[in-house]
Amino acid sequence: MKSREVHLNEYLKGAPSASNYSVVEVDVPAPADGEVTVRNSYISVDPYMRGRMSGIKTYIDPFQIGAVMDGGAVGEVTASNFDGLEVGDHVMSMHGWREGYTKPGNSLMKIDTSILPAQAYLGVAGLTGMTAYVGLKRIINLQAGETLWMSAGAGAVGSVGAQFAKAMGATVIATAGGAEKCEYLKSIGVDHAIDYKATDNLADAIREVSPKGIDAYFENVGGPHFTAALETLTGRGRMAVCGMIHRYNDAEPSMIADNLTYIIGKSLKIEGFIVSDHMDIQGDFIKDLTEWMMAGKINPAETILEGIEKAPEAFTGLFEGKNTGKMLVKI
Amino acid sequence: MKSREVHLNEYLKGAPSASNYSVVEVDVPAPADGEVTVRNSYISVDPYMRGRMSGIKTYIDPFQIGAVMDGGAVGEVTASNFDGLEVGDHVMSMHGWREGYTKPGNSLMKIDTSILPAQAYLGVAGLTGMTAYVGLKRIINLQAGETLWMSAGAGAVGSVGAQFAKAMGATVIATAGGAEKCEYLKSIGVDHAIDYKATDNLADAIREVSPKGIDAYFENVGGPHFTAALETLTGRGRMAVCGMIHRYNDAEPSMIADNLTYIIGKSLKIEGFIVSDHMDIQGDFIKDLTEWMMAGKINPAETILEGIEKAPEAFTGLFEGKNTGKMLVKI
Repeated sequence: MKSREVHLNEYLKGAPSASNYSVVEVDVPAPADGEVTVRNSYISVDPYMRGRMSGIKTYIDPFQIGAVMDGGAVGEVTASNFDGLEVGDHVMSMHGWREGYTKPGNSLMKIDTSILPAQAYLGVAGLTGMTAYVGLKRIINLQAGETLWMSAGAGAVGSVGAQFAKAMGATVIATAGGAEKCEYLKSIGVDHAIDYKATDNLADAIREVSPKGIDAYFENVGGPHFTAALETLTGRGRMAVCGMIHRYNDAEPSMIADNLTYIIGKSLKIEGFIVSDHMDIQGDFIKDLTEWMMAGKINPAETILEGIEKAPEAFTGLFEGKNTGKMLVKI
Repeated sequence: MKSREVHLNEYLKGAPSASNYSVVEVDVPAPADGEVTVRNSYISVDPYMRGRMSGIKTYIDPFQIGAVMDGGAVGEVTASNFDGLEVGDHVMSMHGWREGYTKPGNSLMKIDTSILPAQAYLGVAGLTGMTAYVGLKRIINLQAGETLWMSAGAGAVGSVGAQFAKAMGATVIATAGGAEKCEYLKSIGVDHAIDYKATDNLADAIREVSPKGIDAYFENVGGPHFTAALETLTGRGRMAVCGMIHRYNDAEPSMIADNLTYIIGKSLKIEGFIVSDHMDIQGDFIKDLTEWMMAGKINPAETILEGIEKAPEAFTGLFEGKNTGKMLVKI
């Protein structure tokens, strides 16, 4: 079997471009003892990957230059020398942007595709959904009757998070860029959809739909979204800081209006989190998600590009707002 | 009895000046039933008062135009028609910037001056000390062996907070403006004193004395101090946001470098607080403070101006770094 895979050529500042990557065709060997061969069906592109392209160690190591961009992927076993995985089984891996591979069976997680499609394990039922859940449940501790502002509400985490928050009994304001995404937001049941590109004062737009302000804010964007959140949060308001996609491609530090004194006057709590630090509540997540899905409360959206060579374009599209829901590459 | 008192003439933007106030002489009536007459000995000036001069309701009402600037004061009872207070008793009040007054006895708190001087109830043993304690104990939850950065370390809250943190077993880095204040910081036992005015990169100065960074940050300043804290906090670092004196006189919003993505990558927790929301731990505060003072661990500093007409100058001095320790006006 041959596999095309996407390698990173160099660490970068600023927005990624095609020249940062190479598409390389390799031979996939037959599985040795304990190994399996997998043909991927979908690969995931996620904003956090941008940090790994800067060459700086944060909570996660940088990508290796000249090696595959690793990350979430689902596929089907085509050959197995590993007890516990058979040909035809579906698996999730972190083996990244490639059509197929041979790897140790113990680096793979078998997934059940009888109820959910395989790619759901990259989205609502995977780390994307878990990220939204951790932010709402553990960091914000969202209560029924509260008002939540979900930023990037049409994004992968935002779109499932907005639906989780509705299922938890909150009033949900969601922001997104463009009328089409706002239509989508209404279709998934948010109470108020705001097109941030069509307003020149985001805080005023929030207060227009919720004069008392917001009890909690789920941060996926950063920059002026952050300052508008400080302005509209009510006393003892909480902010979960999940991502700041507005900033990931900044080559130089940007400036922002300093309204941080709101943190004192309103006794705000702002907390960043990495989903992998909170896997202890994964059992609660699966239980709640199953209940919400059985009740028809969750409709995950996907934006799909086809062909491994489209992975860089799909990834860059995340920063240009090209996706509604989870961005995937179909192999 | 006559009393001179300081009235606020107008709400303001920017730095306060002498024209914002009037000094007015009034007659202090004899106490009616339930009232006492008090001659103040010290009045307190505090940074939070700046917010009350802007005419905007926050967690506390604005000052009244044409009325006394109210705030903490201590004094001695000179006449009493109230059961429980006698001539010669020392009392603390929130009746503010005046030489004396007649008020209901139940608006006063009797204080014990046999161990601590009266003005300590405006400082280390009062809301100033309690503020430092709440920030360290409840918001940061400082542990022995951790490294804390105390900003405005020579200020009222900062100077007692730095000593509390040492008593709690932490390594303390304190910043202040000028060599003289840094000498003072060394005299009260902080591990590292940094003159922020003598460095052009505060984060580098912190890392020079603590290469691993800081576990916790006590925010009294804001602006570039805040960004340097985000840069130097370690994973799961905590920030208590008590004040941002750098910003209180801003007439227009200032800009700040946006390095907020550190909140995600390092899973930081940032929490603002108002001391009055945490009075439930006042018992713990008194117990710990007594123990630390008996062990000789706490040496509060005071900067004292004399005469009620100096209250505006003392207050403005807070924003110009004129005080070491608690700023007081002696009557």
